[in-house]
Order: sequence, then structure tokens, then C-alpha cells
Amino acid sequence: MSEIAYLNGEFLPLTEARVPIDDRGYTFADGIYEVIVTRNGKPFLSREHFLRLEHSAAAIDLTLPLPITELDKLMLAGIARAGFTETMVYIQVTRGVAPRRHDYPEGISPQLLLTFRPCPEAHPQLLEKGIAIITVPEIRWSRCDIKSIALLPNVLMKQKAITAGCREALFVTENGVIHECTAANIFLARNGEISTPPADHHILAGITRGRIIDKAKTEGLIINEQECSLNDLLTADEVFITSSTVDLLPVVTVDGKTIGRGRPGPLSCRIRKWFAAV
Amino acid sequence: MSEIAYLNGEFLPLTEARVPIDDRGYTFADGIYEVIVTRNGKPFLSREHFLRLEHSAAAIDLTLPLPITELDKLMLAGIARAGFTETMVYIQVTRGVAPRRHDYPEGISPQLLLTFRPCPEAHPQLLEKGIAIITVPEIRWSRCDIKSIALLPNVLMKQKAITAGCREALFVTENGVIHECTAANIFLARNGEISTPPADHHILAGITRGRIIDKAKTEGLIINEQECSLNDLLTADEVFITSSTVDLLPVVTVDGKTIGRGRPGPLSCRIRKWFAAV
Repeated sequence: MSEIAYLNGEFLPLTEARVPIDDRGYTFADGIYEVIVTRNGKPFLSREHFLRLEHSAAAIDLTLPLPITELDKLMLAGIARAGFTETMVYIQVTRGVAPRRHDYPEGISPQLLLTFRPCPEAHPQLLEKGIAIITVPEIRWSRCDIKSIALLPNVLMKQKAITAGCREALFVTENGVIHECTAANIFLARNGEISTPPADHHILAGITRGRIIDKAKTEGLIINEQECSLNDLLTADEVFITSSTVDLLPVVTVDGKTIGRGRPGPLSCRIRKWFAAV
Repeated sequence: MSEIAYLNGEFLPLTEARVPIDDRGYTFADGIYEVIVTRNGKPFLSREHFLRLEHSAAAIDLTLPLPITELDKLMLAGIARAGFTETMVYIQVTRGVAPRRHDYPEGISPQLLLTFRPCPEAHPQLLEKGIAIITVPEIRWSRCDIKSIALLPNVLMKQKAITAGCREALFVTENGVIHECTAANIFLARNGEISTPPADHHILAGITRGRIIDKAKTEGLIINEQECSLNDLLTADEVFITSSTVDLLPVVTVDGKTIGRGRPGPLSCRIRKWFAAV
């Protein structure tokens, strides 16, 4: 088992993979990415991730260097080669390598990087006890539906959360509208109804988020994609965050204020089980 | 004469300079930069650029890997080594190299990159005839005072301008407030008074912009740092943009609408001469 990368047509040890400094990913954040994890050794919801990669690429006028079917084959080959029980696959596509200037030359070749690492460990105690989050001002750009590598604001706010002893930071507009966390979507539940902010330009349409919405409908739960306020959140019965790497984590405090009874609620636990059952 | 880079303690040919894929500059845009050009072979306003680099570093909780005095020495050594008549120095500092996760480990070592290339050619015809620009929605984050490498929105809008046959794109809020171009500040003049948007979090406090404001005051010109509307711009007598690489370029059309008499005005020409005289 070893961490490996696929770069410029070849697999190599991850720590040996290097890119030219003129890769526009390094100087302009001119690129997009996806993270796919395996379940029972198989990529989970990879079709959805690839579709979103295509959405992000189109949104920044980037042509993927390979068709999705080829990307899929590369991913499977890398997973087999790395040999982990469960793999976290990272896929990044940047515009290409060219002397630094903001606009990009015609005919530039996109650069493809895949990395294969073990899946992060699960933290059963986080599921059992729930997590604490903080709120932070929404300082990001207005195209958060694009999964771009221009993640500096996310980095700064995630670090702020960690420094505060919390797990995540939730972006809230100056009008008190909640968007999403630095690397996770947010849901709240009240009187048995679930709400989550709509998948507009302000949030990334999470794959796990989409899965939960679809599944909730087939299970007969009421789930609303609608604008949610910080007040809605603070007065909810339950709050939880979702992402491809954590599935679902219950939130029990926001800025130190207790949500509901201060422990994971029944809807969080029920939804969590959908993923455990995969 | 050759394009060179300084990376990890050594000078090397620019095209041979590579960074690990886990450099947080590549995966998170977790870094800052400056561009300094030489005049008569000497770095122009480098003290101001270094001060701004320190501002950007502090704003993202990054410690520069070297004191400014050492950075300055490195820059001078690189300029001498590259051997160009006039050099464009690019300085980038990223948070460091670490396995990808949003928050950053304590004790991570910032990565320093400098590149040395010839200064871009001057375009006398642009000065003589002026340039065309377009307006675009302000989609960027709310900390544009930080000179970060998270430049994807700037890239997309600069490309839009180029595709439209224009030189620059001006970010305008939905309320019609003008901020700055993708890589330049903006000024307008009316009835002999000059205005430019204030150096708050919405714009980068350009070094050339600052130089013009200071010099205008000593020359007895009236110059106001104040909120400017798109309407102010379209009805101005003169408009010009400024940056370290172009100094000043007169703007003669905005979204196809003619500014003033459609040719560079007297104030643009007068201010331009301040730089020619350096």
C-alpha cells in the first residue's frame, strides 16, 4: 500500500509528483477538483462526482483532458495500484502551463492530477456526541457552485474554526442567510421537517446533500430546499452537516449556543444509517 | 540572458522549477504574491511592494520565510543573474507543503518562489489611442485588499475582456459601484478633479495608484478617494487605469460607449509623464 499520484500520463509515488511553477493552478487557482471516496473498495457515487466535474469545467471554460469514461478507468487503476482498504481519490484539472498572464493562450493543454490516499479515519465519537461549529461572514466569491481550487477563504475560515476548538465554520451573509460550511453542506430540522439552502450560486451542490434530498423524498420525509436564516438554525431541533468524506455529522452547538437538546437527534441518526447501510 | 527562478534556496532555469503537488498554493490557492518591475535596471518602488507583501501575509496568517531585507537581496541577485535590460520580478509565498486538508498544520514551512523574466514590451499605440474596457459583475470575494493567488475570477473576466477585443474588465457591483479592473486600478477625471475608489477591502491598494495620489497632491491636483458609480465613469471627461506593469493607460471606451472625446485626455497624459520621467 502506498500513496500514489497520476500526473502527465504516469503513476508515481505521491511525494515525487511535481508540477511546473507556471502551471496556472499554482499562480492563478485556475482549476477545479473533485474528491471521491470508496465504499467496500468501490468508488461511491462517482458518476455524480464526474458530472459535477463537467459542470465546473464548463463554468470556467475548461475542456477536460479526458472523457469521463477514461477518467473512470484511470481512477479504478489507481485505486487498485494504491492497494488501500478504502481510498480517497482526489482529481484536479488545471488550465495548463503557460507563462504567467491573466488571460490564457488558445490551445493550452489542461493538466490532470489524481491522487490516491487512504480514506480519513471515521470518528465514531463525533457521531455519538455531535460537533461544534462557528459562524463566519460570507466572504467568498459569488460562484461557489463551481468546485474550484480558489479555496483561500475556505482555508482561512476552516482554520478559524479549528483554532476555536470547533469542527467547521458556517458562512453567513450580512443579512443573516446561511450558505454552507467550508467543506460541507448544512441541514436543519424542525417539527420533523428538514430544510437546507437551495443549490444556487452561493453553495456547492454537494453529492451527499443531493443523495439525502432524493432519499428523503422516497422515504416520505419532508425536505425543503429554501433560504434559511441563522435564526432558523439556532432555533432548530436538529442541525447536521454533510460531505462526501464524513457523510453526516450532527451539530450540537453553533457559536457556543446549544442546538435542540444538545445531542444528535433522531433525524440525524436515521439519515446517517442510510450511509452506513451502503 | 535567461528566465530564471529562485525556489527552495537555489536559482535555476525557470522551466525546470517544479513544486510538489501538495504545495498548498496548488490545491488551495493558499498564498500571496507581488510583481515588481525594474526601471533603468533598478527595482521600482520595491519598498512599497514589500510592505504590501507583508500586509497580505499578515492578513492570511502567514509568516514570510525571509525578512524583507533578505528578500530584497535575493531579488537583486536574481535580476543580476537573469541579465535582462528590464526585469519583471514575480514573488510568490505559499503556506507550505502538507497532505491536503483545509486547515493547516502548525510549524508548516512557507514556500518562496521568485521568477525573473523580461519586462513586458511597452505598447506606445495603446498610450496614443487609449484602450477599450468592458464592465463585468463584481463576483470576487470580499478581501480583494489581499494580493492572493486565488485569482480565478480575475482570470475569467480578463479572458472575457480579451475575447471581446478589449484590454481590461472592470468589476462593478450590482448597485453600480465600480471597484477595479482584473489587474489594474481605475481613475476618472471630471472638471479637472480626479476620483478613484477608496482603498478598502474591495480593491487592491495599487502601488502605482498610491504613487499617483501622492504625486497629484504635491502637484496641486485635486484627487478624491471616494465611491464612484458606473454613471460617474461613463460621463467622465477622462478615464484611465493603472498598474505596476503598464503605469497608466487611458481608457477611451467602456462597454463600447465613448468616454469624453474618445481620445486620451490632458490629465492622463500629464500623469503618464510622471512615470516616463523616472
